[in-house]
Amino acid sequence: MKLVLDYLRRHQARFVDELCEYVRFPSVSAQPQHRADMKACAGWLVKHCRQIGLSAQLCQTAGHPIVIAKTPRLAAPKSGEGGKPHFVVYGHYDVQPPEPFELWKSPPFKPRIVGRSLFARGASDNKGQNLAHLKAVEAYLKTGTPLPCDLTFVIEGEEEVGSTSLATFLKQHRDELLCDAVVVSDTGMPEKKLPALTYALRGIAALEITVHGPSRDLHSGIFGGSLDNPAMALSQLLAQLRDKNGRVNISGFYDDVQPLSAFERKQMARLPFNQREYQKFLGVPKLFGERGYTAIEQFSSRPTFEINGLTSGYQGEGSKTIIPAWARAKITMRLVPNQNPHKIIQAARRHLKKLCPPTVRLEIESGHGAEPYLVSPTSPQAKAAVRALKSAFGCEPVLIREGGSIPIVNQFKKILKADTLLVGLALPDDNAHSPNEKFDLDVFAKGQRMGVYLWRELSKG
Amino acid sequence: MKLVLDYLRRHQARFVDELCEYVRFPSVSAQPQHRADMKACAGWLVKHCRQIGLSAQLCQTAGHPIVIAKTPRLAAPKSGEGGKPHFVVYGHYDVQPPEPFELWKSPPFKPRIVGRSLFARGASDNKGQNLAHLKAVEAYLKTGTPLPCDLTFVIEGEEEVGSTSLATFLKQHRDELLCDAVVVSDTGMPEKKLPALTYALRGIAALEITVHGPSRDLHSGIFGGSLDNPAMALSQLLAQLRDKNGRVNISGFYDDVQPLSAFERKQMARLPFNQREYQKFLGVPKLFGERGYTAIEQFSSRPTFEINGLTSGYQGEGSKTIIPAWARAKITMRLVPNQNPHKIIQAARRHLKKLCPPTVRLEIESGHGAEPYLVSPTSPQAKAAVRALKSAFGCEPVLIREGGSIPIVNQFKKILKADTLLVGLALPDDNAHSPNEKFDLDVFAKGQRMGVYLWRELSKG
Repeated sequence: MKLVLDYLRRHQARFVDELCEYVRFPSVSAQPQHRADMKACAGWLVKHCRQIGLSAQLCQTAGHPIVIAKTPRLAAPKSGEGGKPHFVVYGHYDVQPPEPFELWKSPPFKPRIVGRSLFARGASDNKGQNLAHLKAVEAYLKTGTPLPCDLTFVIEGEEEVGSTSLATFLKQHRDELLCDAVVVSDTGMPEKKLPALTYALRGIAALEITVHGPSRDLHSGIFGGSLDNPAMALSQLLAQLRDKNGRVNISGFYDDVQPLSAFERKQMARLPFNQREYQKFLGVPKLFGERGYTAIEQFSSRPTFEINGLTSGYQGEGSKTIIPAWARAKITMRLVPNQNPHKIIQAARRHLKKLCPPTVRLEIESGHGAEPYLVSPTSPQAKAAVRALKSAFGCEPVLIREGGSIPIVNQFKKILKADTLLVGLALPDDNAHSPNEKFDLDVFAKGQRMGVYLWRELSKG
Repeated sequence: MKLVLDYLRRHQARFVDELCEYVRFPSVSAQPQHRADMKACAGWLVKHCRQIGLSAQLCQTAGHPIVIAKTPRLAAPKSGEGGKPHFVVYGHYDVQPPEPFELWKSPPFKPRIVGRSLFARGASDNKGQNLAHLKAVEAYLKTGTPLPCDLTFVIEGEEEVGSTSLATFLKQHRDELLCDAVVVSDTGMPEKKLPALTYALRGIAALEITVHGPSRDLHSGIFGGSLDNPAMALSQLLAQLRDKNGRVNISGFYDDVQPLSAFERKQMARLPFNQREYQKFLGVPKLFGERGYTAIEQFSSRPTFEINGLTSGYQGEGSKTIIPAWARAKITMRLVPNQNPHKIIQAARRHLKKLCPPTVRLEIESGHGAEPYLVSPTSPQAKAAVRALKSAFGCEPVLIREGGSIPIVNQFKKILKADTLLVGLALPDDNAHSPNEKFDLDVFAKGQRMGVYLWRELSKG
């Protein structure tokens, strides 16, 4: 083990250079103009996996390609057939759109290191976190240290757009991917010295609502007053969907929500949290959330209705006196165990249709959905992960629920019959999905060590 | 008179060519990138005025230049000093922004003639209408027919952005602009065979409302639920400003509104109007307006609150799971006699501040404002204009109120002490401020004839 950890220490500078290389690809899965960049990034990844001693290949899908990479083994491993245990390490090479560009202190795809922070889109979500696992395996392989398990890396390119192709991929490759557990570092940890195992995630359901009014933008002087304004109609629709107590006002929205247990609420109350600092960090004049819940509960364990974008009419400089032809809102709802995204989208559609006045035409487009996730935080595997985190970080990890969604964990359960261990390395100020995303280089190094310990602890099983 | 009218008839083809030349300038006053185009357009206008026999010059202002052009005269005319009467003809060479480009069937600044329609941004508002007056004067001058009055054309470049520089200009040139009346063709006529004198206009008051939330876009999974969403806060603010009866819900908004007289309502009821056709023309599923008023009353004589544009968060393809840092609405309110734009803006500011929750920060920027306008529809000058319209169009004109705003008419009254005669040539389907703006070439020709008759009728005094 010492040999492996020494290898990591000695090669940190190169690893950082490699992460810089990785984040230079503008692998924005949502934007068609980056299709070639997506391909180039996946190609780089395959090459890199091969360099560190994995057998890697690019798998084409209906969308962006998936990279699959395996540790060397004598025969195809089959779980439960007396061979070594087999774990899948999941990650994604696609990133969120970088917009708005003007808020970045340096270009999103030109990595910049300040102190121990590496700034770039994707640095934390998910290139840096996933690369830490590759580096841990590299250390085993390059030092000739036998791995106590077989590993398969699955690194996809559609996580930020709903992992559309992954389920098909998992089904097609089911035999070679059957495993004892899936390991994912794509969640957060509360502080630099407080590693975390995440045992629950929120799900998501996306909608795009367009309110159509007149057949084209109309002069607000000539026609204004005699027809409904689509931007006003949209505002009035949206306004009714969240009440003053922060509750989502869609019939049936809370029907299936599994209430937080007293044990869980107690655990959450123990997490470090300073309301004033949190408010300052967000930069808001006052916090706001569902009445009756703490902020930690609100952002990790309660469902939400968020407007992600509004578009209507004239947005340029100055003014344009029109009644816009249409108005659009991009919506995502975060869901908690036991809510079902399809059911929630249907409920939202029904509710919106009921609310829509006859003076405009409503168009609702359903977007991606993902179920929420909840596993036991005290299973043998969870305990093994906690031990690995403790060894790597040198302090006691916390058990947390997280507010984000990783659509794929439910697919792993359904298709591969495996639980997912979420050992995330993102700090709260990593600005994931925001301008000036960064990844902490100390956490990068500790994450690599966590990877090293993890395979030993998990293989004890 | 026959000579003059013959001249017009003989030169129609050239006049249409000249209008095409005029609308080719993308003279968008609101957009800084068109500053050079504005200058070029004004330069073309000066040259054109000189070609037809006027003494013309370009007057620099703090904003876009103003073109001033005069009929030849022996001495500087002074109103009331026994000389010929003096009239000012006002127009504007600036146009509305052409966006959204994709809805234009042909490029907005490449004129296209289909049947008797000339399609181009600015064709109707206001280049075509104003050029008709220039052509009428050209006919007098080029045939050597004595004009019964002196004329001064004032053609500005900031009408679409609130005529910011015109008041200062009028004050600076007050002596040479003092006149018996101002003539403006920048309003509408109900049908091709129904010319109109507009005796009232709505005013306008513009606002830009920005709701600020977190200091940057935030990950809706990591943080969502614990802070207010600025796009939701904006929607909830806007939603409260118009009720189900189409009434503007701002305290004091209707306080100064001068009610419609029974006579006026009777006049309006006589105007040709087919509700089903109107609805079809707008392309809306159902009309909507202030309860208790007809559609004509709603769009001509009642005040409104319109959202002209909405901007927030991610607007690109696909989805981006963020809580946007801010959300913005562009607003214009149409005002009717006796509302005051400054008072209304103050009322809106007060009301919005009262409604804004403490969880977001509200920023309100006041835009341009213009007072509503109302003059006697039965004065000797109004009667003269009605006679000119009748002679030119060959049918009985109607007296109408119009919903648009021409900010400058109140300035003419205040600074030049002159009433404004609004003899508009825009048809309801001219798509002013919309994609595929057009001007009817028959109306263009009749507008020129109206110009010819007008000076004779008005000078009878």
